[in-house]
Amino acid sequence: MDSSRKIMKIAIIGGTGKEGRGLAYRWAQAGHHILIGSRMREKAQSAVDDLKTLLPEGSLLEALENSAAVEKCDIAVLTVPYSAHRETLDLLKENLKGKILIDVTVPLNPTKVTRVSMPKEGSAAQEAQAILGEDTSVVAAFQNISYENLMKNSPLDCDVLVCGSGKEARQIVLSLVEDAGLIGWDAGVINNAVVVEGLTSILIGLNIQHKVYSAGIRITGINR
Amino acid sequence: MDSSRKIMKIAIIGGTGKEGRGLAYRWAQAGHHILIGSRMREKAQSAVDDLKTLLPEGSLLEALENSAAVEKCDIAVLTVPYSAHRETLDLLKENLKGKILIDVTVPLNPTKVTRVSMPKEGSAAQEAQAILGEDTSVVAAFQNISYENLMKNSPLDCDVLVCGSGKEARQIVLSLVEDAGLIGWDAGVINNAVVVEGLTSILIGLNIQHKVYSAGIRITGINR
Repeated sequence: MDSSRKIMKIAIIGGTGKEGRGLAYRWAQAGHHILIGSRMREKAQSAVDDLKTLLPEGSLLEALENSAAVEKCDIAVLTVPYSAHRETLDLLKENLKGKILIDVTVPLNPTKVTRVSMPKEGSAAQEAQAILGEDTSVVAAFQNISYENLMKNSPLDCDVLVCGSGKEARQIVLSLVEDAGLIGWDAGVINNAVVVEGLTSILIGLNIQHKVYSAGIRITGINR
Repeated sequence: MDSSRKIMKIAIIGGTGKEGRGLAYRWAQAGHHILIGSRMREKAQSAVDDLKTLLPEGSLLEALENSAAVEKCDIAVLTVPYSAHRETLDLLKENLKGKILIDVTVPLNPTKVTRVSMPKEGSAAQEAQAILGEDTSVVAAFQNISYENLMKNSPLDCDVLVCGSGKEARQIVLSLVEDAGLIGWDAGVINNAVVVEGLTSILIGLNIQHKVYSAGIRITGINR
């Protein structure tokens, strides 16, 4: 990692699932201090123990309850299933004040996953922003990644579109995208999250049609 | 063009703009019979005359009023600005019965083009489907293409996501995407049009940030 770059304390809320583990794995390798959060600290500890077997000695990983992880972090990442999205945010609202929340959630309809289906706020990220209020900057990112592939060290053939409240917050998230070994793009205001979240349904549909698990997107026409 | 493929009569509603001309240019080259439509036949004739100077002799292009073009066509393409979307569809509703309409429209907010902004139906394509009713199959496609590049013969570095009412209608549109020299993907039901239309705002934002006119997308992770 670029030595000018800040090591961050990153709380991964619901960090025991495959999305959370995948991001933790990549960011721990980049030198960040990872706080794996779970509703039960023991579950978080089990995920930390698993991750440590895959990571270099000295990697910084800690197991905490979600609220303690958020309290201690510089930046938080929400990786719970959509069914737990609102409840989790309601519980952590006070802890998230003054922080950036990266919302990875896709509001999939379990019975129609290939059909774009958004909450009344417009997207999961806008719903999070509405719950948390102006004291937290919500940034949507990482919805289109195949998480199984995050745990492999090979390059991932999928770009990350980053949209959310405030250009500065998006820039911080874009640097974390790069630290995860991915290419990120500033996709604008939080209203645009509907596109990034909804794209997941289209990619799932393409995976089903083509019998793969790897459909992703690349931005073209711009020098990287 | 594959000799097993049907030559189609394609009406391009509002075919005098750059989107319509670009698609007409590509499809005429593929051997299709192009009916350029406009509110005034003389304007359509002027576009046809321009296009004929760029195309091989014998290319099939005709100038008609919009309603006559739609009446005569196998498949219609709507390429008017969003401000004329509803009015144009109201006028052509009867002519479009029993046909497929490819809706290319992006509901851009003229003062905030980089911010996704959809009509109450969810997307321009869903709005079109609501206006036209079940007798017309609306398919959304071609929103993310840089139209200036359609008139060049070089390959275009942007895929086309196709979503809309009915798998058969999407398949017909996908064959027209291929005839235009582009790679298309079945992006599912018409509810997914919000993603494809909204992506245009994100790509415009990337064009502005990176000072280009060429931002596009590619689907990755699937053998073409």
